[in-house]
Amino acid sequence: MENFVFNTPTTVYFGKGTELKVGELVKNLGHTKIMMQYGKDSIKKSGLYDKIINSLKDNGITVVEMGGVEPNPKVEFARRAVKIAKDAGVTMILAVGGGSVIDSSKYTALGAKTDVDVWDIAMGKFSPKESLPVACILTHSAAGSEMSNSAVITNTEVNMKKGFSTELNRPKFAILNPELTYTLSPYQTACGVVDIMAHTMERYFTDFPECEPTDSIAESILKSVIKSAYIVMENPTDYDARATIMWASSLSHNGLTGAGRLNYLAVHQLEHALSGIYDRVSHGAGLAVLFPAWAKYVYKKNIKRFARFSRNVFGVVEDNDETCAVVGIEKMEQFFKDIKMPVRLSELGITEDISELMAKETTFNGTRTIKSYVELGHNEIKEIFDLCK
Amino acid sequence: MENFVFNTPTTVYFGKGTELKVGELVKNLGHTKIMMQYGKDSIKKSGLYDKIINSLKDNGITVVEMGGVEPNPKVEFARRAVKIAKDAGVTMILAVGGGSVIDSSKYTALGAKTDVDVWDIAMGKFSPKESLPVACILTHSAAGSEMSNSAVITNTEVNMKKGFSTELNRPKFAILNPELTYTLSPYQTACGVVDIMAHTMERYFTDFPECEPTDSIAESILKSVIKSAYIVMENPTDYDARATIMWASSLSHNGLTGAGRLNYLAVHQLEHALSGIYDRVSHGAGLAVLFPAWAKYVYKKNIKRFARFSRNVFGVVEDNDETCAVVGIEKMEQFFKDIKMPVRLSELGITEDISELMAKETTFNGTRTIKSYVELGHNEIKEIFDLCK
Repeated sequence: MENFVFNTPTTVYFGKGTELKVGELVKNLGHTKIMMQYGKDSIKKSGLYDKIINSLKDNGITVVEMGGVEPNPKVEFARRAVKIAKDAGVTMILAVGGGSVIDSSKYTALGAKTDVDVWDIAMGKFSPKESLPVACILTHSAAGSEMSNSAVITNTEVNMKKGFSTELNRPKFAILNPELTYTLSPYQTACGVVDIMAHTMERYFTDFPECEPTDSIAESILKSVIKSAYIVMENPTDYDARATIMWASSLSHNGLTGAGRLNYLAVHQLEHALSGIYDRVSHGAGLAVLFPAWAKYVYKKNIKRFARFSRNVFGVVEDNDETCAVVGIEKMEQFFKDIKMPVRLSELGITEDISELMAKETTFNGTRTIKSYVELGHNEIKEIFDLCK
Repeated sequence: MENFVFNTPTTVYFGKGTELKVGELVKNLGHTKIMMQYGKDSIKKSGLYDKIINSLKDNGITVVEMGGVEPNPKVEFARRAVKIAKDAGVTMILAVGGGSVIDSSKYTALGAKTDVDVWDIAMGKFSPKESLPVACILTHSAAGSEMSNSAVITNTEVNMKKGFSTELNRPKFAILNPELTYTLSPYQTACGVVDIMAHTMERYFTDFPECEPTDSIAESILKSVIKSAYIVMENPTDYDARATIMWASSLSHNGLTGAGRLNYLAVHQLEHALSGIYDRVSHGAGLAVLFPAWAKYVYKKNIKRFARFSRNVFGVVEDNDETCAVVGIEKMEQFFKDIKMPVRLSELGITEDISELMAKETTFNGTRTIKSYVELGHNEIKEIFDLCK
């Protein structure tokens, strides 16, 4: 087992009706003026917006609103939010939404405490020492940003999507009511499921000996999410299945599934290049295309690992390890198909050959490799994208 | 899934050499004068004491020492520590040891911020609003106190052991180096293993529908701990097995295994009565006697649950659920025997009939019942203790 630091300071309020606590929680932390970020108007249609605003008002909290966070959130929006947050003197950012809104809020919170540009923070040119506190009300189980130390943002000027991690990014509290995810479309739900699985599998498939209980816990999370995904595809308002997926979202990316293992997130880096250039590509959908391709390319480096995955996650019964590994990857791909996720680039509407372009993007024109189970340079990445055709 | 709050603010520094960080960590939190509690002189023999003191001194920290915390830590000691902590004006308590030392430190930390007696805090007569921060360097994987909100203390004047939970009890940081557990005796190690399993099983066996991923995670922790226990019984310096047990110790009691489930800890309450009166009884050994007896008494109320446990933790292959449940409980008992734990009161040196006495103690003379899978009143508890003979 590798040495690790486990730091999960986010207090989670999980369950029905927990969004009604928000005003009290903000007040108890001593804030009287906050910024609230959200995406489209869906929270107004669902009534969530009113519940939150009322709870905040009832507790004497003044709210500066910033609606309109886009999927694959943009640097331009965060820059604008930083200026408004500074001018208004807010002391906290409340994110109401999924990973995009939370990540946008995290960058706003970092930017509000410095004069350094948000994109320079994302690019790691500056090491932030402080941040405004962020809290969130989650409406989409996917990114795990509600407990994670990471945040991803897109710069459309340079067609680039970039993640940045700091312990300052961990939200103070996260309100998780599975009922708030009932209205997600099957496509949005499935994208989230793939993201959760990817967060778990990225750590599971690092080139390292077995590591317990982390490995078994990862398998438990994967099995639970797969089972629940089939249930919510049939019945979007199954509370327990929605709850399983929501809690798995947090656990998959809060440090638990990486405890004692290496944390590379290689496939995420490939996907960020993809949706950085093709803004229409949802992160989860990009991962659904890339993960099986990556697995097909690397599994031979540790057949036993993939065979274990196949047996313990998909229940494959097959004595031969290599056959078992291959079947497991097929099962993963089939599961993505079952929940109507794309598994080829063409299904994302990308019919041109992008392998060379992606290899250049992800390696910063050949100036770096991506650490992973198998170290990925230009040629390796090109071959993985070829497998996505 | 039940609503829950998940609050794990303790930062864990896990792995080899992490104890050398202690001075820096204390300093970074802004403390210059702290109390350090520990048990016997074993930390001096092992060299750990010198490492810690040097690290603290190198960072300009003044240390007030309180060695001599006993197993089943005592109120008298905590009272003395409170007085010394107040007189010296320490601002933090560092626990170096296992659950007993950490729990003693937690009570000292609570007592140092009030004039209320430590025992009155334990008895819930006072609701503390503040506490000195506690941190720990763990030397025994067992109680999970390194991340938990609970603390147990014994009052020998009234022969009573009492737990008290408050979020103030969560340590600021916990240093977990599995190598520090190499020198534990097989008996101490086994007692810890039983305690970890009990923390997990207490939540697993509550009368509630299945709850994922919590249930599967609990099974993962149990399987990992059982496998690692056999390894360390053969080879006490197997790093990975010691690491598995140590991390499982924290996860079993930090909230993860109870997320979305009811949290009763019924068998713990029975055991506290036992070791409250029989101070020579180690908590883990008492649990090894009581858990199979409790399970035999209650399993019929939810045969499917015990059958699942039997299949998923012990790999029992048996189609008939009731048979499967019974075999699973036998396997649990056999495992405790395999790691040389007692499974009958006589093996604890208790040959007199204590069933009536224990029923009175645990129900506070019939004035309360213990909530659990099956609610336990005087008669039920008496029968469970009868099964321990």
